[in-house]
Amino acid sequence: MSESRRRGSYAVGRERRDRIVAAAAERFATAGYANTSMTGIAKEVGITATGLLHHFPSKQHLLLAVAEHRFDVAAALVDSSADADGDALIDALLAVTRRFVSEPGLIELFVTLSAEAADPSSAAHELFAARYQRTISELAARFEACARKGFFREGVDYEAIARECIAVSDGLQLQWVLSGGRIDLLADIRRHLERLAESLRP
Amino acid sequence: MSESRRRGSYAVGRERRDRIVAAAAERFATAGYANTSMTGIAKEVGITATGLLHHFPSKQHLLLAVAEHRFDVAAALVDSSADADGDALIDALLAVTRRFVSEPGLIELFVTLSAEAADPSSAAHELFAARYQRTISELAARFEACARKGFFREGVDYEAIARECIAVSDGLQLQWVLSGGRIDLLADIRRHLERLAESLRP
Repeated sequence: MSESRRRGSYAVGRERRDRIVAAAAERFATAGYANTSMTGIAKEVGITATGLLHHFPSKQHLLLAVAEHRFDVAAALVDSSADADGDALIDALLAVTRRFVSEPGLIELFVTLSAEAADPSSAAHELFAARYQRTISELAARFEACARKGFFREGVDYEAIARECIAVSDGLQLQWVLSGGRIDLLADIRRHLERLAESLRP
Repeated sequence: MSESRRRGSYAVGRERRDRIVAAAAERFATAGYANTSMTGIAKEVGITATGLLHHFPSKQHLLLAVAEHRFDVAAALVDSSADADGDALIDALLAVTRRFVSEPGLIELFVTLSAEAADPSSAAHELFAARYQRTISELAARFEACARKGFFREGVDYEAIARECIAVSDGLQLQWVLSGGRIDLLADIRRHLERLAESLRP
C-alpha cells in the first residue's frame, strides 16, 4: 500500500472514530449511559455493530473515549488562550464551564466516572490520573505565561492555583447534580475566577 | 416501663449505636469497605451479629451511618466557631480538613460515595442531598455572622462562598485520591481559605 493510501485510510478510520465518539457523547448526555445501546450508536453512525466493535470492544471503552474527548475539548479551549492576557485565560475557563453546562447529561456521567476512577483497579483510573495531571500542568503553564507578561504576579504557586480551579469546577458539578441542577454553575465559577484574578494582579 | 427506665435504655442503645459507627468508620478507613465484614464489626464492639443487624440491617446502612457521622463531625467543628471571629471560622474549616487528612481511608470512601449519591435512585442520595444543603446553609450563616460583627464585608452572597469552600474541599479530595495522595490537601485548602478571607475583609 502506498504511503498516501495508508494515510488516507487512517484518516477515514480516524474520522469515523470521531463520529462514533460524538454520537455516543450525545446519546449518553440525553438518554443516559445505561439506556444507550451499542446497536443504537452503530445505527446512528451508519455502520454495522461489528464495525463499531472494531473501534470500541465494549460500551465501557466508548465511555472512556467520551471522557477523553471531554478532556480534549476543555484542553483546547484553555489552549486557545495561550498567547493572550489574564482576562482571556479567565474567559477560556468560563468557556469550559459554558460547554459543560450545555451538556448537563455529561455532568452527571462525569461526576460518577471520576469517582469510579479514584479506585486504582477501575478501568478509568489510568486515563483520569494522567489527564488530571496533564490538565493541572497545562493550566499552571498558562497562568505562569500570564505572570511572565505582567498580567498576574510572579512567584505564586500556579500548580496550586490550577488544582484549585479544577477542584472548584469538579466540586460544584457534584453539588449541581446533588441539588438537582438548582445552582447556577456558571455564575458560581465566574465569581470564583474573578476573585482569583483580582487577587493575582500585580 | 417508667419514663426514666425508658430513657436509660434509649441512652444505652444510642451509646452502643455510636460505638458501632465508630468501629465501622475505623475499619472502613483502614481495611477498606469491601474487606470489612459485619461479623468482624460485631466482634469488635462485643455484640452478636444479630444484635448488630438490629441496629443496621446491612453493611450499606452502616456505610450511610458512617457518612452521616462524618457530616456531623464537620458540622460540629464549624459550629464550634459560632461566636468567634473570621479567623476562628477559617481555623475551624482547616480543622475539618485536618480531621479528613487523619482518616485517609475515609477520603477515598467518600469520594466514591458522594458520586454514587449523585444518582437519585441510590440509597445515599437523600442523605447527601439533604446534608449538602444543610452544610451550605450553616456555613453561609457562620460567614454572615462574621460579616455582621464586622470581620467580613456585608452584602456578599455567602451561600455562594459556602458552596465554593465545600467544592474546593471535595474537588481536592478527588485529586488527592487520583494522584495517589501526592498533593498536600491541608496546604492547598489553607491557601484557598486565606486568600478568600483576605478578599472578604471590609
